[in-house]
Amino acid sequence: MKTVIVIGASGKIGQAAMKGLGNHRVITASRSGEGCDYRVDTTDKASLRALFESVGKFDAVISAAGHCEYAPFASMTEEQWDATIQGKLVGQMNIVKVGLDHIENGGSFTLISGILNVKPMPEGIADATTSGAIDTFVKCVAYELPRGIRINAVNPTVIEEAWSVYGEMMPGYQPVPGALVGKAFERCVDSFITGQVIFVDA
Amino acid sequence: MKTVIVIGASGKIGQAAMKGLGNHRVITASRSGEGCDYRVDTTDKASLRALFESVGKFDAVISAAGHCEYAPFASMTEEQWDATIQGKLVGQMNIVKVGLDHIENGGSFTLISGILNVKPMPEGIADATTSGAIDTFVKCVAYELPRGIRINAVNPTVIEEAWSVYGEMMPGYQPVPGALVGKAFERCVDSFITGQVIFVDA
Repeated sequence: MKTVIVIGASGKIGQAAMKGLGNHRVITASRSGEGCDYRVDTTDKASLRALFESVGKFDAVISAAGHCEYAPFASMTEEQWDATIQGKLVGQMNIVKVGLDHIENGGSFTLISGILNVKPMPEGIADATTSGAIDTFVKCVAYELPRGIRINAVNPTVIEEAWSVYGEMMPGYQPVPGALVGKAFERCVDSFITGQVIFVDA
Repeated sequence: MKTVIVIGASGKIGQAAMKGLGNHRVITASRSGEGCDYRVDTTDKASLRALFESVGKFDAVISAAGHCEYAPFASMTEEQWDATIQGKLVGQMNIVKVGLDHIENGGSFTLISGILNVKPMPEGIADATTSGAIDTFVKCVAYELPRGIRINAVNPTVIEEAWSVYGEMMPGYQPVPGALVGKAFERCVDSFITGQVIFVDA
């Protein structure tokens, strides 16, 4: 049994991730903290440090925290780009940077990207661009991690549990069960893979 | 003959790009403005707007402007990440966003990424991550551009002309002649391709 911190645990992907963690001790955190063990702001390194120090020993961190703004490229504002770059890209890199000082030997980080970088969608340019950045980051930074620590990304399509929210803007996409995304997170936590992007698509 | 604006024209890649533009009218710009027709700061949309208004009619914009900071991931500071994200990613997206209001019908944008996202290198994590973002951005935003406007990225390995600077940190990489990178930019300007990443590697 490993201790796994799930950041963004109250979101649909966080909930899906936890479907794969039944064999582990799960600690939950989110931006609002509602219904979670901890409150954390991934864009603030001090907030991340406080989370990791409060938890103590842990073996894995799962990030399901990747806030994106959606708009046509021509109307994306600087604020929307900044919110997406900070929320989806910088915030997740912060988790790894700060987490490295606290995670156990042989631990793992699993980040979240999203299918829009390989299946582009109208109004999805910021999500796509930052998902491409996360997939690249994971593949490249894996070589730098010390102490047997691993890093991977889960790149899911839309999940059935979120179809009522996103379905209308995603014609032609086949939603997958959240439990299948949970399997991908589980494999990242429990296997030996590193530097991989696990696509979950139908 | 097309009018082509080369941003970052005084750098090694900008010089390489211009080797492919002998048949065109070339307008040069760079951050310092030294030896160029114009001075421009790609992180400042007003500066870009002023450049495009000063030039008047143009058919293509080439960006060879992608400042990156190099360090091991564990020692990358927030300032280094921010400088790279602004310089290599946001600045180039700004060129497209602002340029769209000024470029001729059927015009083209060609951005610069770099081989480190597919051939990772120690201390290259910020360059790699933002290059992955640029490659993704180009592939996805191409579908959104109006008026027959195209967009591509050139993703080169190190060029011979820069080998004295980067060679020591890049054992096992084969530099290519800048003229070959110039060919890639020329093809992006003169062909009909869009949403493509042109790798120039050996």
